[in-house]
Amino acid sequence: MTDESYNAIKNNFITALRIIYREGLSDAFAHLSARSNDGYEMMFMPRKSPALVQGEELFFVDFEKPVPQSSLHQAIYKTRPDVKSVFHFHSPAVILLSVLGQTIRPMHNYSAIFFDGVPLYKGSGQVESPARAGEMAKLLGGAKALMLRGHGAVVVGQSIREVCMLALFLEESARLQAEAMRLGAPMFMEREEAERIAKRTFKPTSVERAWDHFAAKCAD
Amino acid sequence: MTDESYNAIKNNFITALRIIYREGLSDAFAHLSARSNDGYEMMFMPRKSPALVQGEELFFVDFEKPVPQSSLHQAIYKTRPDVKSVFHFHSPAVILLSVLGQTIRPMHNYSAIFFDGVPLYKGSGQVESPARAGEMAKLLGGAKALMLRGHGAVVVGQSIREVCMLALFLEESARLQAEAMRLGAPMFMEREEAERIAKRTFKPTSVERAWDHFAAKCAD
Amino acid sequence: MTDESYNAIKNNFITALRIIYREGLSDAFAHLSARSNDGYEMMFMPRKSPALVQGEELFFVDFEKPVPQSSLHQAIYKTRPDVKSVFHFHSPAVILLSVLGQTIRPMHNYSAIFFDGVPLYKGSGQVESPARAGEMAKLLGGAKALMLRGHGAVVVGQSIREVCMLALFLEESARLQAEAMRLGAPMFMEREEAERIAKRTFKPTSVERAWDHFAAKCAD
Amino acid sequence: MTDESYNAIKNNFITALRIIYREGLSDAFAHLSARSNDGYEMMFMPRKSPALVQGEELFFVDFEKPVPQSSLHQAIYKTRPDVKSVFHFHSPAVILLSVLGQTIRPMHNYSAIFFDGVPLYKGSGQVESPARAGEMAKLLGGAKALMLRGHGAVVVGQSIREVCMLALFLEESARLQAEAMRLGAPMFMEREEAERIAKRTFKPTSVERAWDHFAAKCAD
Repeated sequence: MTDESYNAIKNNFITALRIIYREGLSDAFAHLSARSNDGYEMMFMPRKSPALVQGEELFFVDFEKPVPQSSLHQAIYKTRPDVKSVFHFHSPAVILLSVLGQTIRPMHNYSAIFFDGVPLYKGSGQVESPARAGEMAKLLGGAKALMLRGHGAVVVGQSIREVCMLALFLEESARLQAEAMRLGAPMFMEREEAERIAKRTFKPTSVERAWDHFAAKCAD
Repeated sequence: MTDESYNAIKNNFITALRIIYREGLSDAFAHLSARSNDGYEMMFMPRKSPALVQGEELFFVDFEKPVPQSSLHQAIYKTRPDVKSVFHFHSPAVILLSVLGQTIRPMHNYSAIFFDGVPLYKGSGQVESPARAGEMAKLLGGAKALMLRGHGAVVVGQSIREVCMLALFLEESARLQAEAMRLGAPMFMEREEAERIAKRTFKPTSVERAWDHFAAKCAD
Repeated sequence: MTDESYNAIKNNFITALRIIYREGLSDAFAHLSARSNDGYEMMFMPRKSPALVQGEELFFVDFEKPVPQSSLHQAIYKTRPDVKSVFHFHSPAVILLSVLGQTIRPMHNYSAIFFDGVPLYKGSGQVESPARAGEMAKLLGGAKALMLRGHGAVVVGQSIREVCMLALFLEESARLQAEAMRLGAPMFMEREEAERIAKRTFKPTSVERAWDHFAAKCAD
Repeated sequence: MTDESYNAIKNNFITALRIIYREGLSDAFAHLSARSNDGYEMMFMPRKSPALVQGEELFFVDFEKPVPQSSLHQAIYKTRPDVKSVFHFHSPAVILLSVLGQTIRPMHNYSAIFFDGVPLYKGSGQVESPARAGEMAKLLGGAKALMLRGHGAVVVGQSIREVCMLALFLEESARLQAEAMRLGAPMFMEREEAERIAKRTFKPTSVERAWDHFAAKCAD
């Protein structure tokens, strides 16, 4: 990795943490990681609030070395070679749906992005052990996101920017779904319909436009 | 168009975008347009967050030229010669009502403004094509606003300031209606009653007073 | 009235407007008034957002002179010699309860302050005429507050500071009641119980303490 | 107590008040106390908003001397020798649950912290007298928190930082529970399950991490 690409990743990493904090998706606990260019280790963060971590505190860890809070990230990188970044966070609407045994179903232009489903891990508590992390990675399968009962969610993607936007879309979708469930019978979308919409609302240019928006808010 | 009136429109345009962002009616995606003085083209904005677009980035486009995200605006200007400005946005309470198949019904002094009804376009996804844009414009008819299922809304009016205020009133009305529906059977207003009230709450002087208020908030 | 007391009232007036705005109880429309020392006229404000009115724009108006938005205030001062200040505003939870035909009932330490009841004016629309203002004043009777269906509320009290705090307590009580109604059968308080509590939670020293708190927030 | 430890406690005390205010758990009324090192008196605060109290205004009071708003704190220190700090506050979701006769039940990683139960004091009004304070302390028993109907909550712990975090966790748990109750039948946790989780989510290092996060937010 060149110094330049390293610095770009570091900047994206810190901005993503600030966005997640600013948008109300995390309190003092959230963990982001990014696969390194050679593919066998990940950039990771110390045990600190996402609002407070600084670029110079980021470090690399390989996929076998036990580091606090790292096991879920490591298990996913090992089973999903396509994944370049993982974001785990505790956001309120996701937690709300999860304790009701519900998961995200497409009903608007953003929830459509999750057309391939968001599995719900029903075990309670934290990740706790590499064995549980492995179960969670297995349940995630090829999906973009996994919900963890009474705990939060994990999203995976092709870049730090993409997982950051997926985190925002997931929480917004959970909030809409919770509110709609209170009010009656929302019109859900069929998978094909949702997939068609996702092709338009989750393009790389849309991710960039949303990233620019949220990054600017954090810089205020 | 003189330089002076051009600058006034540009300033209103940018302020309206900032208001819509500041009041929580848009994330990175919302599009405003304003009919030019000669009536055959519209001032439009680039594909950028309404929080970030700058005055010098605005441009004019005629009603036939395909430009990304422009087709709904163009279709409305062509069928509604009275309309001077169009605002399309994705606001949370409007989206919530729309996925429940509900639309705004007058129940308080602001929702009364929509006494002539707010049609709901039931197709899902984005505008996607000039043909769909035409369908939406047709469904809007002579009304002030149209809701788009799982997507957002479009409001039309006599000026940028007016559509900006209509956008705020529509979202507030949607939020009140959603909350009232959760709690029981709200007292809706008859059309005549709503029209009588709208004459008092939606006068040019009221629009100016509300505009001054929200514009000042943005300048903080 | 000495210059000193005049300036003190003006400062309280402007601070009360800023508080009501800062706490989300008003958009561009809210009207405060204060009875003058001699008792036969009131300090009033121009038709401008409470966030924007300046001290030098305040003026005195007697109880018979028609001035826009003044008739409800005038009608109350004429029928309630004990009232020194009147605040009319459009706050979201009050409007919500009002369209459901509900009014505030004591269930916690602040709603207890309204132990003598909050009548609900069922007519829709604005105040509109001195005749309607008179009906509203009559319905208010000896109470501290009146709700107006689909419109807002008016609170009355011994001073600007007191009506400002009553406005905050009324809106908080309306929000709690709306949320509690969604969840089941809240434990309401008997009138005697509420009156006993109000004697402790609505003392002059409590009003001063709350005023200092909210005034400091506005000065941030 | 050395000057150094005295200053450290004072700084924690003021920061805790600012956090509770900044996070929306108090209006102008909340009272924190901290047991002094010798164990027979408590650091206390004047009758002022937690947003406004200054370090030099704090004072010590022994457990028998009547001081306004002190009796609940004193009663708890006398019956719970393990308790080093007490926080009493009026937070919206706790009040909401309390008027419904509900109390916190573990359903997520933070509510699990209250695995030993949160009693609900059903009497209405304020603390009012040392006799009522004694009843409340007795009902608290060995628990971490007590809810007071239509009034608020009190939390107790090993340090100012711990009670401050417990206050935030309690309010967040109340909000989640209220929202989940609206939506269906949440999956509650068994006591053993909750206790196992609490051992991981309520460790001294987690309290420090959360404290650093919220203290930094206040310093913004």
